[in-house]
Amino acid sequence: MTDPHLNDLLEFLRFPSVSTQSVHASDMVACATWIREKFLKIGLEAKICETGGHPAVIAHTVHDPAKRTVLIYGHYDVQPPEPLEEWKSPPFEPEIRDGRIFARGATDNKGQILAHILGMGEILARGETPPVNVTFLVEGEEETGSEHLEAFLESHRAELACDVIVISDTGMAAHAHPTLTYALRGIAALECVLTGPSQDLHSGVFGGAVTNPATALARLVATLHDADGRVAIPGFYDAVQPLADWERQAADALPITEEQLRQLTGVPALAGEPGYSSIERIGARPTVEVNGLGGGYQGEGTKTVLPREAFAKLTMRLVPQQDPATILQLVGDHLKAHCPDTVRIQITGGHCGEAYFMDPNHPDGLAARRALKEVFGCEPSLMREGGSIPIVTTFKNILGADSLLLALASPDCCAHSPNENFPIENFHTGIRLHQAVLRELGKAQELPL
Amino acid sequence: MTDPHLNDLLEFLRFPSVSTQSVHASDMVACATWIREKFLKIGLEAKICETGGHPAVIAHTVHDPAKRTVLIYGHYDVQPPEPLEEWKSPPFEPEIRDGRIFARGATDNKGQILAHILGMGEILARGETPPVNVTFLVEGEEETGSEHLEAFLESHRAELACDVIVISDTGMAAHAHPTLTYALRGIAALECVLTGPSQDLHSGVFGGAVTNPATALARLVATLHDADGRVAIPGFYDAVQPLADWERQAADALPITEEQLRQLTGVPALAGEPGYSSIERIGARPTVEVNGLGGGYQGEGTKTVLPREAFAKLTMRLVPQQDPATILQLVGDHLKAHCPDTVRIQITGGHCGEAYFMDPNHPDGLAARRALKEVFGCEPSLMREGGSIPIVTTFKNILGADSLLLALASPDCCAHSPNENFPIENFHTGIRLHQAVLRELGKAQELPL
Repeated sequence: MTDPHLNDLLEFLRFPSVSTQSVHASDMVACATWIREKFLKIGLEAKICETGGHPAVIAHTVHDPAKRTVLIYGHYDVQPPEPLEEWKSPPFEPEIRDGRIFARGATDNKGQILAHILGMGEILARGETPPVNVTFLVEGEEETGSEHLEAFLESHRAELACDVIVISDTGMAAHAHPTLTYALRGIAALECVLTGPSQDLHSGVFGGAVTNPATALARLVATLHDADGRVAIPGFYDAVQPLADWERQAADALPITEEQLRQLTGVPALAGEPGYSSIERIGARPTVEVNGLGGGYQGEGTKTVLPREAFAKLTMRLVPQQDPATILQLVGDHLKAHCPDTVRIQITGGHCGEAYFMDPNHPDGLAARRALKEVFGCEPSLMREGGSIPIVTTFKNILGADSLLLALASPDCCAHSPNENFPIENFHTGIRLHQAVLRELGKAQELPL
Repeated sequence: MTDPHLNDLLEFLRFPSVSTQSVHASDMVACATWIREKFLKIGLEAKICETGGHPAVIAHTVHDPAKRTVLIYGHYDVQPPEPLEEWKSPPFEPEIRDGRIFARGATDNKGQILAHILGMGEILARGETPPVNVTFLVEGEEETGSEHLEAFLESHRAELACDVIVISDTGMAAHAHPTLTYALRGIAALECVLTGPSQDLHSGVFGGAVTNPATALARLVATLHDADGRVAIPGFYDAVQPLADWERQAADALPITEEQLRQLTGVPALAGEPGYSSIERIGARPTVEVNGLGGGYQGEGTKTVLPREAFAKLTMRLVPQQDPATILQLVGDHLKAHCPDTVRIQITGGHCGEAYFMDPNHPDGLAARRALKEVFGCEPSLMREGGSIPIVTTFKNILGADSLLLALASPDCCAHSPNENFPIENFHTGIRLHQAVLRELGKAQELPL
């Protein structure tokens, strides 16, 4: 092995840093220690910080108050590797096959964050001064919901102060296709439980004389959308902004066809809100989804009960300007208004998170796009993701900085799945991207807003 | 204990004849042997018959070809007694409290069938010739679905030939209130499964672009009824006969108020098909009930999946003239017609059973009513039960005879539950009822049809 960068990645991947499994607590500390030493070795100040959970690592370049500061965020913890029998090579013994490194964490997120670290290493090894101040924050609890991150940001607000944040933890629109994710949907969760009889009733002995909570629940869920698939809750779309022309063009230009999406999901045909493409429906339009539905007998065959209760677990995916608390109120009110008084209804609000939007035409967005174009050799795609990345909103709220989401993951990287992998090409591209984006962000402050 | 009848019942109740628990197989044989000996003791021919499962006991009076033959059906097997900790006295150590015998099987069905046996014993002990030929059939598999009964009836068709059947295994409309159950609803079961994506999807990453099977299922279930609670499946009511005036009067006269029914079920308010009372909705009108509904995440809290499939388990309760196979076809066709082509639908038909109706104005019905009036001292209620008793249809199909369902169970007998009990008063009433109904059925053949 003559590539020292690749050697570093192989070492990093050998730590079984599974944050959710307590048996790996000492591996977490060992992995954090390794990162700190890597930072020291390339010439940064670095320290391990207690968080209340798994430690985080912070590193800094020498601070120049005349320069902007960029925070690079990543995480060294990984998903559990199970089911082990589905891995072609052991998850913590990285193996290179067909130009890809196979290991748990290869893409998510060790390969991506290490590319940034080594990118900085190259700058310093050349004896250059970085074009911006850089702070690295590498945490160990991302895969378990970054439980202690918010408090940590609060207590390290000054040390982590920055102008903009760079995160490589998203996916490219297609393999080797530069992609800037500029928006994420928010979320609001709600559970609705209908209760009728005081216990399960015999559906013969009582059926016909009482409202069946399962039937009532189904009828209630059926009021959430109109026949065309549009959300039918009054006020639901009130705060939603129309898509700008450039956004529709960007969505249209993404290298993902409707047929590819259909094959990826396995559905007989795609479907959704009229007037929007599937990409727009996923990234730019709010939804109401049933995540779970239940009531009565769940086993094999028949049991002639009239269930005492039934439930629906809903999540609303939100777009910018939609306030999660307002949406929860609207959905709850709608359900209550449509519920017959022959059953009792209970609504419980769950977790909420705001949508995120970072204008890719803002100078920092333009800087990121120039960097992506330089490194990949073609115009980057601008993508809105349908999922939520809560830390991005947390950063915005506490540090007041936007995040540039620069994808280094390929669509077939198998993050969270067996045989997770990272193309060596993406790793080297990431090392170059780090240097390019710092350079462009350094320029951005000189450009007029 | 000076009451020999009560002594017999206590002995009978001490057998833990739980048909579904294989550990009790020898108790089943011992119990059947006890019944045979009881029959021999009162002066009948009797034998234990193999059925392929638990044995049945058949007994006969001396046959007189000039007389009609009445088959008395009952069962000696009982429900499991669990949960044992909820019994005030052990389930197989019968205890008398407040004029009731507490034991598993006290009402269902040992107390009721033994009343018939001892009623015959009294006739023979007085040296009388029974007014009709009587055959007793006491089986041991009623609580497990009478699995071998149909084949047994087929192979004993001649020996069990009869003009009419008497069964005491139903409930009185109110305590000490004579009740003839003259109709039972039929049943048709169906499962509907909707499948969309090839696996559970992330509801953020894909939500909005594919039909959610749980949402689609809810919308499908919502098409089964109209806003007023009437079944909305085309053709569903086609074969349903209007209720005769005497039936509506009989339903109205039942000693059960709407408020009592509401309290019994525990619902905030009763509800059902417009134009009918709750009693009519239960006994005389067909229904479509959801017995089970499921899809996606069933655990605590939130999991943001877009489920790959969702199911509904339905049973239709049917009234006379509704053909179960036709109804299954109608419901299946309706579901398929309303299912969007963006999900796949699979319909599986389950068990079926026809509704039962025995005109209580038929001479045998009138005979039963006279007997009930004589013994209880007031006009009997005529009741349609909402549940199904499949053996009644089996008897009708194989032996060609109708069943008179003469209730001896009180509404608070706790059949199938802890602290099952049988009022001693009902037991003695049953002994007298047996004699009265044989006398009246003996007369019935002399009356013009």
